[in-house]
Amino acid sequence: MAEKAVFHHAGCAVCVDAERRFATALDSKFYDVDVVHLGQDKTRIAEAQAAGVRSVPAFVIDGNFYHINHGADLSALR
Amino acid sequence: MAEKAVFHHAGCAVCVDAERRFATALDSKFYDVDVVHLGQDKTRIAEAQAAGVRSVPAFVIDGNFYHINHGADLSALR
Repeated sequence: MAEKAVFHHAGCAVCVDAERRFATALDSKFYDVDVVHLGQDKTRIAEAQAAGVRSVPAFVIDGNFYHINHGADLSALR
Repeated sequence: MAEKAVFHHAGCAVCVDAERRFATALDSKFYDVDVVHLGQDKTRIAEAQAAGVRSVPAFVIDGNFYHINHGADLSALR
């Protein structure tokens, strides 16, 4: 069964590029990707933060965070 | 045609995890993934560095670098 992978972003250039390069290119056999725009859905910032996310773009998979480069700090999205 | 994605790592725990989570989970329709262990193949450090890679694990795709979290600085691998 595909595992859930949440891709957190904020629409920034670094985020859009990472989404194109990774979020849309992961094999659906492995991951069911949920794309969350934290700038538009601020209710999910706490969830990202609880998993250790400090900046976007970042994936959360099985409770672990994976920052990909650096677009914006979470603190800038509140 | 699948694009080339080079995954640079150095065998560290952060690298192994990123390899499992991303390098082996990218859809082969999109990417032809080349896994390079920079600790074992130091001749390729210059290539990574030229693309902007400063630490591993990192992907290089179409001349752009994508650091995933932080395992080790390239300077520690020489």
